[in-house]
Amino acid sequence: MIDATHDPALRSWVESANGHPHFPIQNLPLGIFSPPGGGAPRGGVAIGDRILDLPAAAALLIGEAAQAAAAAGAPTLNALFALGAGPRRALRAQLSELLAEGSPARARVEPLLHAAADCALHLPARIGDYTDFYVGIHHATNIGKVFRPDNPLLPNYKYVPIGYHGRASSVRVSGTPVRRPSGQLKLPDSEAPVFGPCRRLDYELEVGVWIGPGNELGEPIPVGEADSHVAGFCLLNDWSARDIQAWEYQPLGPFLAKNFGSTISPWVITPEALAPFRIAQPARPEGDPAPLPYLLDDADQRAGAFDIGLEVFLETPGLRERGLPPHRLSASNTRHMYWTVAQMVAHHASNGCDLHPGDLLGSGTISAPDEAGCGSLLETTKGGTRPVELESGETRRFLEDGDAVILRARAENPGFVAIGFGECRATVLPAR
Amino acid sequence: MIDATHDPALRSWVESANGHPHFPIQNLPLGIFSPPGGGAPRGGVAIGDRILDLPAAAALLIGEAAQAAAAAGAPTLNALFALGAGPRRALRAQLSELLAEGSPARARVEPLLHAAADCALHLPARIGDYTDFYVGIHHATNIGKVFRPDNPLLPNYKYVPIGYHGRASSVRVSGTPVRRPSGQLKLPDSEAPVFGPCRRLDYELEVGVWIGPGNELGEPIPVGEADSHVAGFCLLNDWSARDIQAWEYQPLGPFLAKNFGSTISPWVITPEALAPFRIAQPARPEGDPAPLPYLLDDADQRAGAFDIGLEVFLETPGLRERGLPPHRLSASNTRHMYWTVAQMVAHHASNGCDLHPGDLLGSGTISAPDEAGCGSLLETTKGGTRPVELESGETRRFLEDGDAVILRARAENPGFVAIGFGECRATVLPAR
Repeated sequence: MIDATHDPALRSWVESANGHPHFPIQNLPLGIFSPPGGGAPRGGVAIGDRILDLPAAAALLIGEAAQAAAAAGAPTLNALFALGAGPRRALRAQLSELLAEGSPARARVEPLLHAAADCALHLPARIGDYTDFYVGIHHATNIGKVFRPDNPLLPNYKYVPIGYHGRASSVRVSGTPVRRPSGQLKLPDSEAPVFGPCRRLDYELEVGVWIGPGNELGEPIPVGEADSHVAGFCLLNDWSARDIQAWEYQPLGPFLAKNFGSTISPWVITPEALAPFRIAQPARPEGDPAPLPYLLDDADQRAGAFDIGLEVFLETPGLRERGLPPHRLSASNTRHMYWTVAQMVAHHASNGCDLHPGDLLGSGTISAPDEAGCGSLLETTKGGTRPVELESGETRRFLEDGDAVILRARAENPGFVAIGFGECRATVLPAR
Repeated sequence: MIDATHDPALRSWVESANGHPHFPIQNLPLGIFSPPGGGAPRGGVAIGDRILDLPAAAALLIGEAAQAAAAAGAPTLNALFALGAGPRRALRAQLSELLAEGSPARARVEPLLHAAADCALHLPARIGDYTDFYVGIHHATNIGKVFRPDNPLLPNYKYVPIGYHGRASSVRVSGTPVRRPSGQLKLPDSEAPVFGPCRRLDYELEVGVWIGPGNELGEPIPVGEADSHVAGFCLLNDWSARDIQAWEYQPLGPFLAKNFGSTISPWVITPEALAPFRIAQPARPEGDPAPLPYLLDDADQRAGAFDIGLEVFLETPGLRERGLPPHRLSASNTRHMYWTVAQMVAHHASNGCDLHPGDLLGSGTISAPDEAGCGSLLETTKGGTRPVELESGETRRFLEDGDAVILRARAENPGFVAIGFGECRATVLPAR
């Protein structure tokens, strides 16, 4: 739903917001921050290079918006997520007015702003369960080709939004380093595995979905109602140890190859902020089966997908030393998701599985169809056989210690102000 | 460590405890209960057919035991689990004295007991993450035979304690019915899947492991210290929709086939209570590789396994109507676990994955090598081809609506008083 909060003419009295690459007044993402000096973590809204203290702002709001801001007084956004779309929309509408140029409330709002650079950002929610999907069809095809060149996609792929359970405890917010894992590695020249540091450390470019209101165990969520269970979106780096994965994953799927850490961006981009960037679900290639009825909803087909540009950058010690900018590894887009978010949610709950506010869903790696749009090094370097060459003279088959991976997302649509997701960044620490 | 709390001559002034099949004074398992009339959930200890209110008993305890009992004032045992073995042992020792025949404290303790039959039992902890292993080697072999008759175990099985992440949100305590899930089913005579109620609903006989003190992300747990991270044990029924599973599980493992519900027994059987039932890790068959060093600990090899008898009973509407007892489907034993609990924990954290108090690990299905010891109907009925015949005249290939599955466990060792785990029971409700 496009409303006054999306007006491209809308400007904020927070000067840094106007033209800000991520957080103009049209975005207003939610997060959890500690103010300078180290107060208790609480809800906040990013506006330009500032963060608005949400619980402190509750007194300036009315009705459902005040209720939402008060719920953000907790150290996680779970309670706010649980309130659903009504209070979240009311909050957006009133904050948009308070922060707009000419707002008579400016003098009362300004003291509630903190310089973002001086704040600490935290995980936005206590993650009950984390589920990772596999809806990036070009990624699934690229990976499948390694094993089945003639028939890369398994027979279930175009019927089932494939997903599996990930590890909730090891999800960390952007900026937290990730430790290179050790594990069992089966080297090609050896009968038995050895235990040692991962040699094929990789990233995966994903979008994360925050669940808002949940469902009772045993009660499916119809696909037409699924969007009302979504609280927002983030970037997600699903770090992957390819050598550990190759040896351990049969028959029950990835485990230690993934659960040593996942990194998410701190800001929750709301469905409201992303309304101008909705697109029709891209047409399925001719011959692909129609989604089964429980996954098919007209409105979702018409406007359930997103046009959001995604980028991955690699920052190596060599680039840093030489003062060179991070190397862009990949450019992709959420339009390469074979299933919509509503289909992911409806499928997840189709057997009665109960979702809860603060659950996190990952999209799976989103690769573009072209070689410059691979969402992992495994794809970009063809399993490590075609190293990436960097301006520093370095090469990379997989990630090395000291490397930082940076994910970015930006939604653009002519006639609207573009918004960004902020950054999802982490640096690789050497193995213990 | 065997101490005075295990003395077989020890009797309780709670008469029902003496000779109780599950909860003699030598057991003293921990749980969360609501007293009759519906007070707030709190920690309790089962003794015979009574439950001792733990926070109420804190005033009768001293030192670490009092600390443990006070921690049990919360509606979950997470805080008690986090305290680790010292306070848990002190609690056991002092409760054993308070409840023993001749205790001078009897008059003060007796008012703190409730009739278990009048109490509600809850999940003992808030489960952060739930991980399911696959350490029942006879189960893995039975399942593998379906796909690879000549080479049923995959090459990694004897090196890797295979595990995967399950769904924490849908774990329920014994007594909560389980709703038959619907899902995508690929019928043999059809090209495309259909969506409908599961036709091949199954149980899985497992033991659950409660995690006590956790580890920091990035910091592995050495196998020699792994037992100190375990708070206790329960029974676990990992309900499985075999038809959904067969179609969805490639390439990332089981998802909707499992996450519609898991049932656990309410009582946490402590490592202390199980000390008399420790056995050496059964010798690996000749030719099996030795565990890699990070999974190998002398003390664990000598006494890291358990001798606990496991049983599965099926109670059908027909048996109930005719007043017939539940049918015993299976008898197995924890000695059929190929990996010890310490090996499971050490492996889980070997890549730095962080475990937390209240995390739940499942063993995976524990089948005995013989046909009467299969831990699932898939095995017992050979994939539904050899139905089980019941005294009521009913037959079962898989579970039908109204069926109840009951898991029981009992640890016996001559010279000690046998203890039980209580019951893990749930009834199948028809699909929505």
